[in-house]
Amino acid sequence: LTTGTTVSYSSPEKMEKEFTDQREVSYYHPLTRKIFLKLPPPDLNDTLPDLERLYREIRKKEEIKTLDISLDCLRSLPNLLRQSNWEITVTLWEHNGTTEIIHVEPGNTSINNYGIALDVGTTTVVAELVNLGTGEVLGVSATHNKQIHYGEDVITRIIFACTKDGLPPLNNAIIENIKQLIKQLVDENGITKEQITGIVAAGNPTMIHLLLRLNPCSIRLEPYIPASNTYTPVRASDLGIDILPQAVIICTHGVSSYVGGDITAGILSSGINNSSQISVLLDLGTNGEIALGNNDWLVCCSASAGPAFEGGGLKCGMRATTGAIQKVIIEDDGVKLSIIGGTKARGICGSGLIDLIAELFLNNIIDPTGKFQKDSVNPHVRHREEESEFVLVSAQESDTGKDIVFTETDIANVIKSKAAVLSAAKVLIESVGMSFQDLDRMFVAGGFGNYLNIERAITIGLLPDFPPEKIQFIGNSSLSGARIELLSRHALEEASLIAKKMTYFELSVNPQFMDEFIAAMFLPHTNLDLYPSVQRKSSENEKASENVKKDGATIKKAKSDTALKSLNTSTAQNIKQESADNPSQELENEIEELKAKLADSKAALPMHDASPQQWIAIEELEDKISEKKKELKNLKK
Amino acid sequence: LTTGTTVSYSSPEKMEKEFTDQREVSYYHPLTRKIFLKLPPPDLNDTLPDLERLYREIRKKEEIKTLDISLDCLRSLPNLLRQSNWEITVTLWEHNGTTEIIHVEPGNTSINNYGIALDVGTTTVVAELVNLGTGEVLGVSATHNKQIHYGEDVITRIIFACTKDGLPPLNNAIIENIKQLIKQLVDENGITKEQITGIVAAGNPTMIHLLLRLNPCSIRLEPYIPASNTYTPVRASDLGIDILPQAVIICTHGVSSYVGGDITAGILSSGINNSSQISVLLDLGTNGEIALGNNDWLVCCSASAGPAFEGGGLKCGMRATTGAIQKVIIEDDGVKLSIIGGTKARGICGSGLIDLIAELFLNNIIDPTGKFQKDSVNPHVRHREEESEFVLVSAQESDTGKDIVFTETDIANVIKSKAAVLSAAKVLIESVGMSFQDLDRMFVAGGFGNYLNIERAITIGLLPDFPPEKIQFIGNSSLSGARIELLSRHALEEASLIAKKMTYFELSVNPQFMDEFIAAMFLPHTNLDLYPSVQRKSSENEKASENVKKDGATIKKAKSDTALKSLNTSTAQNIKQESADNPSQELENEIEELKAKLADSKAALPMHDASPQQWIAIEELEDKISEKKKELKNLKK
Repeated sequence: LTTGTTVSYSSPEKMEKEFTDQREVSYYHPLTRKIFLKLPPPDLNDTLPDLERLYREIRKKEEIKTLDISLDCLRSLPNLLRQSNWEITVTLWEHNGTTEIIHVEPGNTSINNYGIALDVGTTTVVAELVNLGTGEVLGVSATHNKQIHYGEDVITRIIFACTKDGLPPLNNAIIENIKQLIKQLVDENGITKEQITGIVAAGNPTMIHLLLRLNPCSIRLEPYIPASNTYTPVRASDLGIDILPQAVIICTHGVSSYVGGDITAGILSSGINNSSQISVLLDLGTNGEIALGNNDWLVCCSASAGPAFEGGGLKCGMRATTGAIQKVIIEDDGVKLSIIGGTKARGICGSGLIDLIAELFLNNIIDPTGKFQKDSVNPHVRHREEESEFVLVSAQESDTGKDIVFTETDIANVIKSKAAVLSAAKVLIESVGMSFQDLDRMFVAGGFGNYLNIERAITIGLLPDFPPEKIQFIGNSSLSGARIELLSRHALEEASLIAKKMTYFELSVNPQFMDEFIAAMFLPHTNLDLYPSVQRKSSENEKASENVKKDGATIKKAKSDTALKSLNTSTAQNIKQESADNPSQELENEIEELKAKLADSKAALPMHDASPQQWIAIEELEDKISEKKKELKNLKK
Repeated sequence: LTTGTTVSYSSPEKMEKEFTDQREVSYYHPLTRKIFLKLPPPDLNDTLPDLERLYREIRKKEEIKTLDISLDCLRSLPNLLRQSNWEITVTLWEHNGTTEIIHVEPGNTSINNYGIALDVGTTTVVAELVNLGTGEVLGVSATHNKQIHYGEDVITRIIFACTKDGLPPLNNAIIENIKQLIKQLVDENGITKEQITGIVAAGNPTMIHLLLRLNPCSIRLEPYIPASNTYTPVRASDLGIDILPQAVIICTHGVSSYVGGDITAGILSSGINNSSQISVLLDLGTNGEIALGNNDWLVCCSASAGPAFEGGGLKCGMRATTGAIQKVIIEDDGVKLSIIGGTKARGICGSGLIDLIAELFLNNIIDPTGKFQKDSVNPHVRHREEESEFVLVSAQESDTGKDIVFTETDIANVIKSKAAVLSAAKVLIESVGMSFQDLDRMFVAGGFGNYLNIERAITIGLLPDFPPEKIQFIGNSSLSGARIELLSRHALEEASLIAKKMTYFELSVNPQFMDEFIAAMFLPHTNLDLYPSVQRKSSENEKASENVKKDGATIKKAKSDTALKSLNTSTAQNIKQESADNPSQELENEIEELKAKLADSKAALPMHDASPQQWIAIEELEDKISEKKKELKNLKK
């Protein structure tokens, strides 16, 4: 672990190379480090005191100018050194040029050093357990933000926090979330809580205020002032998180009242700030945040997207976790679904609902305003007095014992969300005198699990009509950015610089925004000229649909009855079975599946600091694909 | 308050000059500083968050690279700024290149910033209240170390601390001492405890271990290893001291197991380390510590002197406080005493007992071994079966209602103490190939109040026979050093360098030490050739004494009876009254008195960073003396 190494964040290829020798993980410098030391016991010729003896030994290994120790550690030192036969492990943390000893343990425990990357979202809280010695991600766990009891969005929570004694319960809620996530990760991985020595958190300013128990009241009152955008490192004991009491907790610095460390971390993760190419990052959380720029300049804005993309506020919405419908294909004879974990369906998550709306639109089941076509006879459409809905899974087949449906209100919610994001992005880009066409790259981030169908996102007008190969889905970039900061001191500094450098554009005072927002409240957009690719698809489907119509309503009716019955058999898994009797077709399907897996794995890969395990998994997939291709070749011979 | 100013510590003349304009107190940089700030309130054109707004305002006043804030301060900031109409006072502390905001208060409280200089002695604990804004010393209070219940010396306290649950009561005892001293200073000066924002403590390594609740056990076991000689700054709340919870507590760095921050502070105070002249510092505490060197090199050693110089372990010993006999003159017809505070006598303190033994010896009342002459008919000598004693004040005249006596055992104790100090100094000086004659200066420090008669200290052989003009009594140099550190960041750094630079000589392994110690167990010394000045005085007194003897025992008897009766009238004050009827004589007396006061004031003056008030007092004294001299001149005309 060499200090002072320059780290490049922009080149995953380079990282891949560096990972070829796993022993030389020299490019990272985690938030906290454990070093095993064998001290020479004192004698009459070497009477250095315990602490100075420890400092001397550390300085034999590393060139450290300023060393410091916490009082608690110093108090424990004399007994600990003598009881451990002068063999100990110290945990070090660097801050503002001082290296502090935050923990001393007997014996060699240097391999047991873990950290937590934390994405504190308004709707969802995600924690990742990382081995700080190797960089390996050991597990991820996610949960609903318990603060939801006090309000679904940031504003209602601030209002609650500013009532008498309102702040502590909101603070307690998120602390409970974090404790619970950590407990789960610790239990699953057979480590102890005290082995967790550092946390990097990213979240929007209100979430971080509530986490640190900072008064957030001024955030929602003109002129919208947070207590701080830069957060002093705190200790686990300061926040009542039951890991190593002296563990360091870093909150990623934010930019403004409504653009926080989540977007700073996202930019870090995307690498926008390290490239001369002009890129945009769309982070589709409850607050949609958009950042634009390159290694020279960065601007950002924020738009309230609502919780729809995280499955919130929808009749059968859910997070991207086991049981969530993540992919939807509507075919003439029914609906094909892919469910996370391959279990029975429990609801629909962000990627699923984007797929669904795109399919409903392309199949002419809903109109561009998001209303069900009055004359739609699709067997899954249930026309009701209050509102129409689309039945994805019937009560008998669902895990919940209830129909899994998608209502007109749900569609309206998603359209509002996508309109907010797109119009904000458009206004921001035009604010700097550019248009979507001038962009080199687009990164889409959000809590969609490992999957987001970019073409479908374009179809519904969530994304602009942009060449899909220039668009990359990078998953939860707030979380991956926090992990990068956890693993690299240099990245941590970089994140502070990003936050400092970024200029915030306030959309609420921009008259263009409301116009753009209203124009975007259609599928894909009021101005269809902006979506030529969607226009093409739509007209193709139109023709197909007309052909179907010619066959007459009776046929449609019969088909739809069959479809409703076969809902449970129409999962992605069943797609495979349909072609199981043709070995060549089967191989082709397997290859397609592997390719999809590979694409997912690559998309889920953080831009930098990917773990060796992730790279190995990708290599294995690539090997399998070429193997299967060979088999297929042989078979066709 | 400019940062980066270079401070010279070696030239009091220069300091005096700098004090001519009291407004420009730019040469000091106290441990903590309060700055009043008027922040511009935020508006839509200036949306900087609260903390960054605060940082910006501080940086308008000072060039500070790295600013930090405690979580508690940040939590209080939003409400405080708005409730105080954006007018606040921040308390700043610099450490390892970072300036931390440790406290934020509404309004302008910048004039209320106080610190405590603390001398944590084995026998006596002394606290000084200092105005950190002006450098003024507002008060001093002292008390017996409550740890005395657990043992009189360092070793017995370590043994107690290392029994089961032994450390907390010793720690609590000193914390109680400190809290009590601070309460007294706060009450006397009409300030609040929360206005105390910093403490610098100096003490021997065991005292500092017990203060910080560090395990001291290895200090007394070969190879004698403390937990640390460098102490990390802690907060008042860490130690349970009830001042500003975030107040900074610095313990002056020590040198070895038995030479601590008290001697580091003493060297700082004496200025030895800033002069090319070779000087020695004798610190006469319970542990006698000796330091030797110049701006190039420093060596030190330690010798157990016992508590006698602080009035401990003696039948009627007491600290140098109100009621203590601090000066003693034995004349034919009685004893003249000077009592601190001008009250009735309560006991005898260090400077008094040095005077007393010298007088007893010069008047041939005790012999060179410290035993009362069997034939002594001095009316104050009471020959008893168990042991002889010298009655200083009779029960009727004392404040305690008991005779104030000085016993043969007391004399033996003092002789042991003085022998330890002198022999240690001799061995240390000879260890570096020098002798007393090679020294340019000698500083004597100790808890003697403001007075120590250097000639008498030579007479009893506590000090070597050295030209008195080269010897300076500098009072409690541990305390004044701590004050200097409290007032100057540069001095604080200097103290760390002194501790680092100093080489410790272990006397217990030096065979010469015991020989020298035994040789020094006489008054003034076994080898009288080392004390030519004492030999001279002694022979003069011998002659006088013989003359008295010629007058016969009857006269002696009569005189001594009178003397015993007049004990209460024989204070220093009465010396003045005797000559009150002669105006010229009266003026001369007044001048002498003023000169003595002046000498005392100068001796009590810390070498550096003296307060403006002290310099003014000295100037006033000098003015008065020249005035009186003029009067006398006129009178004689």
